[in-house]
Amino acid sequence: MGQRIIFQRQPRIVAVSTIAGTKECEGIVGRYVETALADDMFGESTYEKAECKMLSHVIDGAITNAHLDRGEVDLIISGDLLNQIISASFAARDFSVPFLGVYGACSTMAESLALAAAFVDGGYFRHVVAATGSHFASAERQYRYPLELGCTRPPQSQWTVTGAGASLVAGEGDGIRITSATLGKVVDYGITDVNNMGAAMAPAAADTILTHFRETGEEPDAYDLIVTGDLGALGSRILKDLTWEKGLDIGENHIDCGEIVYNVLEDEFQGGSGAGCSAIVLNSYLHAKMMAGEFHRILFLATGALLSTVSSGQGESIPCIAHAVTLEK
Amino acid sequence: MGQRIIFQRQPRIVAVSTIAGTKECEGIVGRYVETALADDMFGESTYEKAECKMLSHVIDGAITNAHLDRGEVDLIISGDLLNQIISASFAARDFSVPFLGVYGACSTMAESLALAAAFVDGGYFRHVVAATGSHFASAERQYRYPLELGCTRPPQSQWTVTGAGASLVAGEGDGIRITSATLGKVVDYGITDVNNMGAAMAPAAADTILTHFRETGEEPDAYDLIVTGDLGALGSRILKDLTWEKGLDIGENHIDCGEIVYNVLEDEFQGGSGAGCSAIVLNSYLHAKMMAGEFHRILFLATGALLSTVSSGQGESIPCIAHAVTLEK
Repeated sequence: MGQRIIFQRQPRIVAVSTIAGTKECEGIVGRYVETALADDMFGESTYEKAECKMLSHVIDGAITNAHLDRGEVDLIISGDLLNQIISASFAARDFSVPFLGVYGACSTMAESLALAAAFVDGGYFRHVVAATGSHFASAERQYRYPLELGCTRPPQSQWTVTGAGASLVAGEGDGIRITSATLGKVVDYGITDVNNMGAAMAPAAADTILTHFRETGEEPDAYDLIVTGDLGALGSRILKDLTWEKGLDIGENHIDCGEIVYNVLEDEFQGGSGAGCSAIVLNSYLHAKMMAGEFHRILFLATGALLSTVSSGQGESIPCIAHAVTLEK
Repeated sequence: MGQRIIFQRQPRIVAVSTIAGTKECEGIVGRYVETALADDMFGESTYEKAECKMLSHVIDGAITNAHLDRGEVDLIISGDLLNQIISASFAARDFSVPFLGVYGACSTMAESLALAAAFVDGGYFRHVVAATGSHFASAERQYRYPLELGCTRPPQSQWTVTGAGASLVAGEGDGIRITSATLGKVVDYGITDVNNMGAAMAPAAADTILTHFRETGEEPDAYDLIVTGDLGALGSRILKDLTWEKGLDIGENHIDCGEIVYNVLEDEFQGGSGAGCSAIVLNSYLHAKMMAGEFHRILFLATGALLSTVSSGQGESIPCIAHAVTLEK
């Protein structure tokens, strides 16, 4: 049957909500973010609690922006980068709504959106929230080093976005239509450098993009934009090389959320990353541009690196995945 | 719309596969397990790699038992207890099949089965594998203490099952029909004792069971068995009290996978737990009994405790969840 699902009823994103940290709101994308944090701790005592509060804030925001009551929401699908996805689970605790936890690392926005679309398209539920987020400080101390150590970051590294985004998917109403989803395979090219996520994830993105265009028979110019989640500058170059080698030139209309989320300063090196990266770019900037009629058709593809500190410590390479959804307005 | 999904096309479990450790295979359930490990390391150098290999083994087993080639499988849905669900992600790397990672702790078997049924029922895919597993030693060192410390276990604790199970869900063929799924909410009664998962999870199980019977209008005797995942002996007693208080008496036909998975010996205390617990009981013992015509209708309900060592360390209580699927033969 191929890897692609076609949503006959064309479920739509009827409302979105985003929140982002101080650094994220300095960039161009930041101008489109709904809530700009003045303090990355969000009034909480720990980074993890701040991350959870951001996620809860955008889930609530998307419901409110859709003019719905919480009782009218049938399902929340969410995940994050933390061990046992505590941000998503604890955020879901605030809502008396059924919950499905997912884990796809930085691919979570596309995974949860594809699942939400399937549940609505299948006629199982009317209103489903897909949400994810990340926090720079909680990710650093979990995956790398506590910030207090002041470790030097290598030039191929990326900066985990502090932010969260949510989409409310419904069966009817005005919004961005989700017309198909291409679910990705786990791809591992043997990269072991945990500071070079772009290189690890690019082959997974290439695999899903090539599959998508092979199965649809479309050309890249059928889309205004082909958007990857957080490959960063280096990973995006690798992606373009990998697809070009296979006869597909996406150079004209490819952008990467990680590349555009920050004003390029020295310390982010390759750009942004984290589940929150594609979540805020999709649900703020891209959503606004689509609703304004500037973009009509986008292939949104979030990529995830499925490693843990334990797997890396045991000498494993980094398996990655990318899921794509087609968005139309 | 309620929390319940009705699967009109009645997707079915056409094949299963299970594997379990030495201790698990000593019990009554163990006689029904497909592959009995002689060595809980499964020939690997670490517990985590053994867990991953078990999961890979049962995914492959379910595909083989369904007389399918890997190329005919459209999707693998899997998750586990480890940080960043590395067992599931690394197992999926072995298969060139689209993958969705989920996290629901010990509720993963029900969550992945409900998702698999939705994808098949919606007509999106023909063959979907739902799988999960756990390993006693990897869970102990991640959630509690390294085994080498020889810590004393408190009497309210449970023993994480070493084992994995997979179900192959298809749109047609002979098998156990999945007729509905009731997706659970996150429920938190404020339990903070990380050694007493049964008490933490029982309210979530009660919430989903009460919702299921309220929405269906059925009585408990409409089922041969109401099966919970891994509440253990104490948690099962709490569940029966909580539902009885709300006017629903499930005492007659309730069993708990954690309670039956081991011969009761001193060191398991309340019984088994872990994502592998309900996975092996469902895909070995319950599957065999249903196929033999001994049970016709089962409400299978796996429960998960959505905590992490970080959340507990930061003083949080334990949010829990339970998803239910109705199985008929």
